[in-house]
Amino acid sequence: MSVFEPNVVLSKIEYDVVGKRPIRHDGVDKVTGRAKYGADINMAGLLHGKILRSPHAHARIKSINTKKAELLPGVYAVAISSDFPYVSDKVVDIGEGELRNIGFLSANCLARDKVLYKGHAVAAVAASSPHIADAAVKLIEVDYEVLKPVLTAEDAMKEGAPILHDLLMTTTEAQGPGGTVDSKEITNTNVGKSFEFRIGDIQEGFSKADIVIEESFSTVPVHQGYIEPHSATAYWDPSGRVTIWSSSQGQFTVRDQTAKVLDLPVSSIKAIPLEIGGGFGGKLVVYLEPVAVILSKKSGRPVKITMSRSEVFSGSGPTCAGNVWVKMGATTEGKFVAAEAKVVFGAGAFPGSPVAGAARCMFSPYNIPNGKVEAFDVVTNMPKVTAYRAPGAPIGAYAVEQVVDMIARRIEMDPIEIRKINASHEGTQQITGPSFGPVGFLETLDAAESHPHYQSKLDGPFCGRGIASGFWGNNGGPSSAIASVHSDGKISLIEGSPDIGGTRTVAAMHVAEVLGIPVENINPSVGDTDSIGYTSQTGGSSVAYKTGWSSYEAAQDVKKKMIERAAIMWGINTEQVTYDKGILYHSSDPELKMTFNEVAEKMLSTGGSVVGNASTNHRRHAPAFATHICDVEVDPDTGKVTILRYTTIQDVGKAIHPSYVEGQLQGGAAQGIGWALNEEYFVNPDGEMVNGTFLDYRMPISLDLPFMDTVIVEVPHDGHPYGVRGVAECALVPPLAAVANAVADAIDSRLTSLPMNPGAILDAISSNGSA
Amino acid sequence: MSVFEPNVVLSKIEYDVVGKRPIRHDGVDKVTGRAKYGADINMAGLLHGKILRSPHAHARIKSINTKKAELLPGVYAVAISSDFPYVSDKVVDIGEGELRNIGFLSANCLARDKVLYKGHAVAAVAASSPHIADAAVKLIEVDYEVLKPVLTAEDAMKEGAPILHDLLMTTTEAQGPGGTVDSKEITNTNVGKSFEFRIGDIQEGFSKADIVIEESFSTVPVHQGYIEPHSATAYWDPSGRVTIWSSSQGQFTVRDQTAKVLDLPVSSIKAIPLEIGGGFGGKLVVYLEPVAVILSKKSGRPVKITMSRSEVFSGSGPTCAGNVWVKMGATTEGKFVAAEAKVVFGAGAFPGSPVAGAARCMFSPYNIPNGKVEAFDVVTNMPKVTAYRAPGAPIGAYAVEQVVDMIARRIEMDPIEIRKINASHEGTQQITGPSFGPVGFLETLDAAESHPHYQSKLDGPFCGRGIASGFWGNNGGPSSAIASVHSDGKISLIEGSPDIGGTRTVAAMHVAEVLGIPVENINPSVGDTDSIGYTSQTGGSSVAYKTGWSSYEAAQDVKKKMIERAAIMWGINTEQVTYDKGILYHSSDPELKMTFNEVAEKMLSTGGSVVGNASTNHRRHAPAFATHICDVEVDPDTGKVTILRYTTIQDVGKAIHPSYVEGQLQGGAAQGIGWALNEEYFVNPDGEMVNGTFLDYRMPISLDLPFMDTVIVEVPHDGHPYGVRGVAECALVPPLAAVANAVADAIDSRLTSLPMNPGAILDAISSNGSA
Repeated sequence: MSVFEPNVVLSKIEYDVVGKRPIRHDGVDKVTGRAKYGADINMAGLLHGKILRSPHAHARIKSINTKKAELLPGVYAVAISSDFPYVSDKVVDIGEGELRNIGFLSANCLARDKVLYKGHAVAAVAASSPHIADAAVKLIEVDYEVLKPVLTAEDAMKEGAPILHDLLMTTTEAQGPGGTVDSKEITNTNVGKSFEFRIGDIQEGFSKADIVIEESFSTVPVHQGYIEPHSATAYWDPSGRVTIWSSSQGQFTVRDQTAKVLDLPVSSIKAIPLEIGGGFGGKLVVYLEPVAVILSKKSGRPVKITMSRSEVFSGSGPTCAGNVWVKMGATTEGKFVAAEAKVVFGAGAFPGSPVAGAARCMFSPYNIPNGKVEAFDVVTNMPKVTAYRAPGAPIGAYAVEQVVDMIARRIEMDPIEIRKINASHEGTQQITGPSFGPVGFLETLDAAESHPHYQSKLDGPFCGRGIASGFWGNNGGPSSAIASVHSDGKISLIEGSPDIGGTRTVAAMHVAEVLGIPVENINPSVGDTDSIGYTSQTGGSSVAYKTGWSSYEAAQDVKKKMIERAAIMWGINTEQVTYDKGILYHSSDPELKMTFNEVAEKMLSTGGSVVGNASTNHRRHAPAFATHICDVEVDPDTGKVTILRYTTIQDVGKAIHPSYVEGQLQGGAAQGIGWALNEEYFVNPDGEMVNGTFLDYRMPISLDLPFMDTVIVEVPHDGHPYGVRGVAECALVPPLAAVANAVADAIDSRLTSLPMNPGAILDAISSNGSA
Repeated sequence: MSVFEPNVVLSKIEYDVVGKRPIRHDGVDKVTGRAKYGADINMAGLLHGKILRSPHAHARIKSINTKKAELLPGVYAVAISSDFPYVSDKVVDIGEGELRNIGFLSANCLARDKVLYKGHAVAAVAASSPHIADAAVKLIEVDYEVLKPVLTAEDAMKEGAPILHDLLMTTTEAQGPGGTVDSKEITNTNVGKSFEFRIGDIQEGFSKADIVIEESFSTVPVHQGYIEPHSATAYWDPSGRVTIWSSSQGQFTVRDQTAKVLDLPVSSIKAIPLEIGGGFGGKLVVYLEPVAVILSKKSGRPVKITMSRSEVFSGSGPTCAGNVWVKMGATTEGKFVAAEAKVVFGAGAFPGSPVAGAARCMFSPYNIPNGKVEAFDVVTNMPKVTAYRAPGAPIGAYAVEQVVDMIARRIEMDPIEIRKINASHEGTQQITGPSFGPVGFLETLDAAESHPHYQSKLDGPFCGRGIASGFWGNNGGPSSAIASVHSDGKISLIEGSPDIGGTRTVAAMHVAEVLGIPVENINPSVGDTDSIGYTSQTGGSSVAYKTGWSSYEAAQDVKKKMIERAAIMWGINTEQVTYDKGILYHSSDPELKMTFNEVAEKMLSTGGSVVGNASTNHRRHAPAFATHICDVEVDPDTGKVTILRYTTIQDVGKAIHPSYVEGQLQGGAAQGIGWALNEEYFVNPDGEMVNGTFLDYRMPISLDLPFMDTVIVEVPHDGHPYGVRGVAECALVPPLAAVANAVADAIDSRLTSLPMNPGAILDAISSNGSA
């Protein structure tokens, strides 16, 4: 079987468009360089903004003197945090149930009285050229009282640790089927929040175990590494309306967050989405937009701010460092009877790590009757972390899937077999939440087991194979689509989701499938916040699901109207018209039929233009599982790990466009391999990242990786018209553990911290004596 | 009564928003210079296009050599007519029933084998700067065989006249209640089309007349004189999709005409409307867009072409010259018994003058039992005429309203009285078409009669007062609107009508009225052809009517959805929710109510965004009448005519925004005064316009005019939710005749041709012996 062959198992229904692989509508724009990204915006009178960033990881700002900067010729405005309105450090709903502390968001855009990480934005300048802005930034004088930084969650939780926030209060939430515990509030702490999930009786559970394995694991921050740095352009016009052009994972997110930080009505801001050169969760939060707006307000001119790569590393959000302790008990037959974990994540400068994501997902693949997970969100003097593809879950899986591997080795059971014995299925009660509906985890394990990769022999010294699985819940959310029919029968589709992974084509495919017309006849585009109804961000692996669905509904609206028009043309009732694959039939005269195009051509004379419109807010529980197979070879002399073969198997519900799904699976694996082997924020004791370039921060490139095989498993999700579950995030959950298990198999020694770079590998080999 | 007081008669219903005078939404943009017009477009790689224009009024193109131009450094592309696809000279439906001869349209954009007027576009160049493009245009060598031009319709109809088109065929249509005559086709002619309208028995009618007056009148071409010259920018992208940015009276018109000329599917073109600096009918046809598209296709870069003012005069469409012979018979009691007319209009280089508009409207104000109108559309070696505000009707009224004035003088009857005796009313059968529904002509005459202006005495030598009335039918057409509710309760309204007269605010007022919320909460904008459903052009005084109505329907859709959401929030049926003035009430609990904003705030949790959508195609017969009163003083030494006082009285059905209506009434009168007194294409015998600048083509400026008083008569049109009839065009129908009647009154001598410039006035005075 060629690795280029589509490889889909369990697909049940053959569709006309869904499941096919049309050319993406934005392809030519992108390969010809015509697509407009954040920094491509230009306009008359544009000023260039630059940010002054903190040289200290932790310091109190005693004063800021901007006078010299303001006097530099070519400087139009200087902004500091006091130019923002006061917003309290309270958590509020920023549109669509997204809770966020606006005070913290504001203080992350421009530091208030303290800087909390090296690279923290302190002030900003708008000038007639980027060079003048650069020079002006250097003229801003900041008087700091330097404080001792605390760089890890472990240190930050210690007695006597430097405290970042005077008023931080800890709340403890107990969730899951095990019931609640009282919540408590603590001041003078670096712990932002803690969670506790329970099921069954943990002591009784472990008492039934024949084998108990416990281990501690740790990871360091890694960055999403999107190609396009953050860039935002804003114009505050004389009537007080604000326009923002930026590249983000959600134009409504940009609008709503900026509105909250600046205390403006959301409708006073029009956020225009540009193409996005990668996000992976890192473009769900504003850094530059509120600053650009304020600079524009002060200067009266449009202002563009674009980060450099080193600013992206030091001034935007990576994912967190994690410390995970896992204890699991199993019988000699391989049945898991109890599990326990403690998860501590460093959130960076403000509370809000994805520790809950890790805690919720880490044991979800398995049916474990007794369990407990404790989780802590801890602030540190590092950049505020943000989402990175299945936030938290890869770190949780990194720990649990290794312990599962250790149990399998201990009882000499095949690692797929032990997962099959314990696999979550319909009705399984999760430790951390609801019981599952129909899920496809077993199907991924079956597909893995029978895959030629797993059936192949892996021989040779220092070669190893690893298996790991992973879980992610996937989101839905509000979404809007407008489908406008042209007189030539083609359709303009406006939808609200910034397109990272080919989703505008996926939306168009929903429309084409409903209407039975070629997808090439649909011209999809992403609307601005004034042109399309609210659509939640491109995150949570939600877009194919939610915007596919709103597009599906908009197409149904078009279909209904086309039937009405045909009925008018024939002088009959709509019930007498049937619609099938783009043809409208007169039900009482089989000779009478019209094509979609023929009805479109006459639409103006049958009542005006045909425009289909839908706004939906579908929520769902569409759990997705993946199983990865990784073969590695370790060079015992250099410590280099070579990925020999890699296969990802994932239940996606339904792959609307299998090529994009495969791309997501491959991309998730590639990012996971980088995270496992090479990537890290290498930070000195002062809190300075010393590898803040793509030369020193080593992401995998194509030469580092084999072609990655993919198997799309399709257990349709009954909560979507075509069965979509979601794809992107789950693909990054297993790889850290899959690579770790493969390395352990290769060198017969288990590394419990990331990255497994050559030095770490050599240390492990030498301590094991196997070299 | 101050002239600044709102002066509305017959208004019946008091609305919350409709009829008020809110500040226009685009006001700040426009007064601060931020609004983007056609020439404001700029982008990376933009090329500048220039047009080579014919120096001859009539010539055969033997060859065009573009080689030298192509070789000039900085030139990227040269286009001539053979770069356009072949399209036959057949009339086709260009979207929405608009019939147009695409071959002629194409040949007007770039001449094929003949040039037909001085200024006719022959070739075009795209270069890196406008200066290089100018230089390159001069390097294009055209070998002409110069032909004798024919400049007037009168000459063009003569035996042996130069024939413009080898294949022109005349069709004669007979319309009106008098039945049909056979149509015939004639080749080797300059007559493009002729019409004949009949009612009753014309011979018998005149036999009953006590007085018969006949007279011939003539007018010369005048230009609409919009401030903004034509400008179009186009980009043919590598995927074959075309984007056009231009200022026009219809982005869909631009799209559809360009698509037809270039033989492209309409959906492959996205036409983006920019603000428009005046149109008045002159921006309903493409000149530059297809040329810019072809230059972009050939160069691979975006291309902008902007006309100079002299190009606007010589290369775009003025309105026609007209020769009108009118014969009317009346009894001594002032009752009209018969009317006859022959109308000959010069269409310019291609058929299609507004002669039918003149013929249809000229006798419409009056109930005349026996009548006949013959009309001829004749091509001449002048720029192809295009629409100018109530196309044709001012010329027809110029003739008829003077003959009415002559009859009134002959029988010594008050000019308002004679109009009242004969005024069309509900049920009156027009010579040229259908009988009237409810109309407000008599109401305008009553308002004129009782107006302080008419009640005032006008004394003094060489002072005169003129009365004239006018009729226009007004159009409807397809229109689309999308109203998207934001979580703060404000609404983005996207509609499809380029806004010339404040119509985006009028559309917003419809939404605000329906929803009972402030109009400031609506943010209206004009969408491009991909973002909004088909909306026919801003012409025919249709926008307040049709786009007001589609916006009204979109708002009704919002209202329905808000009621549904409130019902969800209260857990009741929608029938149990009532909506009044922006408040939603729980019908069974009077204490329970929510504001529009409160329901909007929760919309995402009650089903997603609330987006209202409507596409309509309302046609109508909403006839509108106006009566104007004009006082002049003539200087017998210089021939200068001073407008002393001017009052316009018009039935508009319902004035949505009275300030804009008043502006339209004043603007129509001002344009009519210019047409009457000063404006003309002054053409030498070779067909060259010798006054093609705004210094020499003398339009009235504010110093030339008194404040013009307006009376808005409101006889609601029962075919629109708020009674709108339409405003803009009818306002230009009476002034030519009103001024002419006033001048006749002042100098006791009637001028029968325009313009009544000082030379003509002095001639008339001297021939009359009154000076």
